[in-house]
Amino acid sequence: MNGKTVVYSEAFVPFSREEVIDKVSAQMSEKRLKHVMRVEQTALSLAENQGLNLEKTSITALLHDYAKERPDDESQDVIISENLDLDLLKFGNNIWHGPVGAVLVQKELRVEDEEILSAIQKHTIGAPQMTPLEKVIFVADYIEPQRTFPGVEEARRLAYINIDESLKFAIQHTLVHLLAEKQLIYPKAVEVYNAWIPQK
Amino acid sequence: MNGKTVVYSEAFVPFSREEVIDKVSAQMSEKRLKHVMRVEQTALSLAENQGLNLEKTSITALLHDYAKERPDDESQDVIISENLDLDLLKFGNNIWHGPVGAVLVQKELRVEDEEILSAIQKHTIGAPQMTPLEKVIFVADYIEPQRTFPGVEEARRLAYINIDESLKFAIQHTLVHLLAEKQLIYPKAVEVYNAWIPQK
Repeated sequence: MNGKTVVYSEAFVPFSREEVIDKVSAQMSEKRLKHVMRVEQTALSLAENQGLNLEKTSITALLHDYAKERPDDESQDVIISENLDLDLLKFGNNIWHGPVGAVLVQKELRVEDEEILSAIQKHTIGAPQMTPLEKVIFVADYIEPQRTFPGVEEARRLAYINIDESLKFAIQHTLVHLLAEKQLIYPKAVEVYNAWIPQK
Repeated sequence: MNGKTVVYSEAFVPFSREEVIDKVSAQMSEKRLKHVMRVEQTALSLAENQGLNLEKTSITALLHDYAKERPDDESQDVIISENLDLDLLKFGNNIWHGPVGAVLVQKELRVEDEEILSAIQKHTIGAPQMTPLEKVIFVADYIEPQRTFPGVEEARRLAYINIDESLKFAIQHTLVHLLAEKQLIYPKAVEVYNAWIPQK
């Protein structure tokens, strides 16, 4: 894997970057791991652009899809036992792997940093209010170099000029895509849209 | 006004059709009254197609926009005093004139028929489950002859073949339009979409 390598202080997770990558790779296919590594590089590039903490950015990006390949029944158990929004159960892994992932990396990898956990939690649908790190992870996941959907070049261009505009592009176009594909829409995703998109 | 004239038994509202039209015309501009009369004719045509009660259809269509020009402060008072969904207050008259209208025609015109009231209530966003009359009013409002948006001809064609397909067309395309225009979306409208559109 080429690209930028952040040396961890281990203040935020009790492992080196290589150890984190090993633990992540045990959770997913090689294909998804490559996506995760691309998201890390994209997120680091955006974080540098904005002067964010690169270690926290690297950790969050590497862990953002930690729960994506967890079996549904295990994720459903987490949603219930951790008192997450029970509505998640109706909307499937594409929505719940964010909130479930935040729980699992805390339990299994001893990540306690609230900003990292909330950025993992919120990366699937965003939130009405988002921190700079949350925005970077959400946008990096949307624009990483292998994304090829119509409009991705515009989202990439915006990400380095005004990350809020790239975030809004992602929020709106994701809903447009779900509607066009006649897929279920998580009502909280519409609350996120309402918070970011309409002119007040 | 040309078109079909239903003679009322006054079983559902204690007025003749002409008296109902007079009461409705006192609530709105001449332009909106013409829309209401077109919705009535369209709804009657759909109701005949489906063998529904024409008197109830006529009453519901004539009353569906009863609250549309009510001042915002009066509608807001109704939402609060009648314990309607307080979320309505955030989404404005385009959404709330249905639920508020159902309250007002009961209070002011002594309409007690639940099917009429619920069809007025639900005509702005639809509902996960809808009666035949509710569908007819919702679709008639969407396809009345002066509607000219792209796709209206397809919605009209479907309405006489399979009203559920026309309803689904209206639900989906209304959300697409709101997204394209970057307008607020009422989360309950997405619950309606989720109930009708995605393949299970």
